[in-house]
Amino acid sequence: MHGSDPRNVWDPAWRQAVLIADSNTDRLFGARVAAQLAERAKVLRMTIPAGESGKSREQKGRVEDAMIAAGIDRSACVVALGGGVVLDLAGFVAATYMRGIAHINIATTLLAQVDAAIGGKTAINTPAGKNLIGAFHQPRAVLLDGEALASLGDHELRNGLAEAIKHAVLFDRTLFETIEAWAASRVSLRPAREVVARCVAIKADVVARDERDGGVRHVLNHGHTVAHAIELATEHAVPHGQAVAMGMIVESRLAMQAGSYPAEDLARLGALLDALGLPTAAACSFDDALPFFARDKKTEDAAIRCALPARIGHIAPEPDGSWLRTVDIAALRRAWCAA
Amino acid sequence: MHGSDPRNVWDPAWRQAVLIADSNTDRLFGARVAAQLAERAKVLRMTIPAGESGKSREQKGRVEDAMIAAGIDRSACVVALGGGVVLDLAGFVAATYMRGIAHINIATTLLAQVDAAIGGKTAINTPAGKNLIGAFHQPRAVLLDGEALASLGDHELRNGLAEAIKHAVLFDRTLFETIEAWAASRVSLRPAREVVARCVAIKADVVARDERDGGVRHVLNHGHTVAHAIELATEHAVPHGQAVAMGMIVESRLAMQAGSYPAEDLARLGALLDALGLPTAAACSFDDALPFFARDKKTEDAAIRCALPARIGHIAPEPDGSWLRTVDIAALRRAWCAA
Repeated sequence: MHGSDPRNVWDPAWRQAVLIADSNTDRLFGARVAAQLAERAKVLRMTIPAGESGKSREQKGRVEDAMIAAGIDRSACVVALGGGVVLDLAGFVAATYMRGIAHINIATTLLAQVDAAIGGKTAINTPAGKNLIGAFHQPRAVLLDGEALASLGDHELRNGLAEAIKHAVLFDRTLFETIEAWAASRVSLRPAREVVARCVAIKADVVARDERDGGVRHVLNHGHTVAHAIELATEHAVPHGQAVAMGMIVESRLAMQAGSYPAEDLARLGALLDALGLPTAAACSFDDALPFFARDKKTEDAAIRCALPARIGHIAPEPDGSWLRTVDIAALRRAWCAA
Repeated sequence: MHGSDPRNVWDPAWRQAVLIADSNTDRLFGARVAAQLAERAKVLRMTIPAGESGKSREQKGRVEDAMIAAGIDRSACVVALGGGVVLDLAGFVAATYMRGIAHINIATTLLAQVDAAIGGKTAINTPAGKNLIGAFHQPRAVLLDGEALASLGDHELRNGLAEAIKHAVLFDRTLFETIEAWAASRVSLRPAREVVARCVAIKADVVARDERDGGVRHVLNHGHTVAHAIELATEHAVPHGQAVAMGMIVESRLAMQAGSYPAEDLARLGALLDALGLPTAAACSFDDALPFFARDKKTEDAAIRCALPARIGHIAPEPDGSWLRTVDIAALRRAWCAA
């Protein structure tokens, strides 16, 4: 965390900057960041459409072709300015442009600050699903834009809070209790800087232990097996944070019904999500979502796998040593429908 | 080198195989390889068009969508069967499918056996140039198909011989003399197995010293700065091996005219290429090629850079420690037009 000014982390070897924002973040912050970059490098400023449609093959190709036409070479650094969509697309562009150039992330949403900006996962969507094509490509720096955070509405803040709560549920009961206390007395949905910083530290620690997502990093998918299916089944009408909230509830209830998660903790999780205006029941029927489970990247041989904590603040490996439990469809249906 | 049977190198963890060939290699060897793979895994068999058009964004997307529709997951291994085009495309598909899955290369052309199959460079072309979008993704195994080699015509063999000669020019004067002696007494254009094996060893050694192409690996671009410009200027009417032969002559003459390469060695190189039916003069005018130099990936700030050996069998770093020399356009024009 170096504030939000890219000049603070600029490598003099980067002679060109490719600033990629979505139409919203470009309007709000594009001119400021472009002016900062212009003091260090030649700047190509590009925008993609806001929303998940920005993470498409078509947008990736359009950005690449513009970079080639502008003479961008391997001495360039891609500067991603925005939320998860921009960061994922721009990072993937950087990962494959001339077989990989540098990039830095300036995260403008709470969701991106506590999750997408950290860890080097980049991707685009295809008509069949989210994030199916992508690469691991670590950003050279991650900047958290406080000004942007101050501009976010409650809807955006809730998206990030769901992931912050996920980090707490997985690794830090004290953080969970901090968020609980804040939720009870809060005047806004903007979390304290310390909460964001703790989430960044948790995520960075997990990624450092398993950069390529072959082991412990799988736990970060808690809530996401269900969330991704809901997002696909509703054609992304449900925002990611809401889907993750639903997913944490369904997956935790599944664990509880299997006798491996305390009922009291499920109740506390539900109460906290509710206090923050996050949903605690799935937004679509199980049967609508079922066809979309098999397309999740964690799925091997059509099995459905979930990362299930043992209690709030603690997750342990499954008996087979992996961090994902293979889930029975009937059990998943039961947990889904019990809301 | 494990023969050409993928069963010899199959990892039991790979539960699915995605066999990707071009329309020619599929017709010749697809059924045999698919049957071998079927003994180890569920097989999805796909073809792309033969020729450079197979290395497009469109083909990559088509292959990916078919893999998603077939339920291919992270337990799969992509099996690339063909020449450089198939290996580059299939390797790039593997590099970005669900952020990277395993792949093995079965090289069916001499060119691929001595070059493209080794080193992990994968890429597609865009309308603006070759290999501009791609990734580094090492194959888990490289198989050299002897049966395929026996089926190649002289045209295809010449393509590979140009790269084999390049390896000799860069690192191995004895190999160069072996090829010279063979060229003088040859009964066919099919090189001895030992020549292929020595080229594989040279390439593998360079890649091991600089996997990400930031230093000594640049020397493998000898002849290619010119070759890529010729290929673009002629819209790939000139086959890669011929373009590399032209490129080696132009770049070596440039070095000779700069006083850093023996005239005798340039004459020997020209004589060897000529004896094998490879061209020794550029196929297009310098002015036609000039606009295409700036799009080469080695180019930074529009400078043109070449990897220039000191003599046959030896290349040394430039005075600034890099392996590429920045080349003056007027000098390049002089070398180009002296044929």
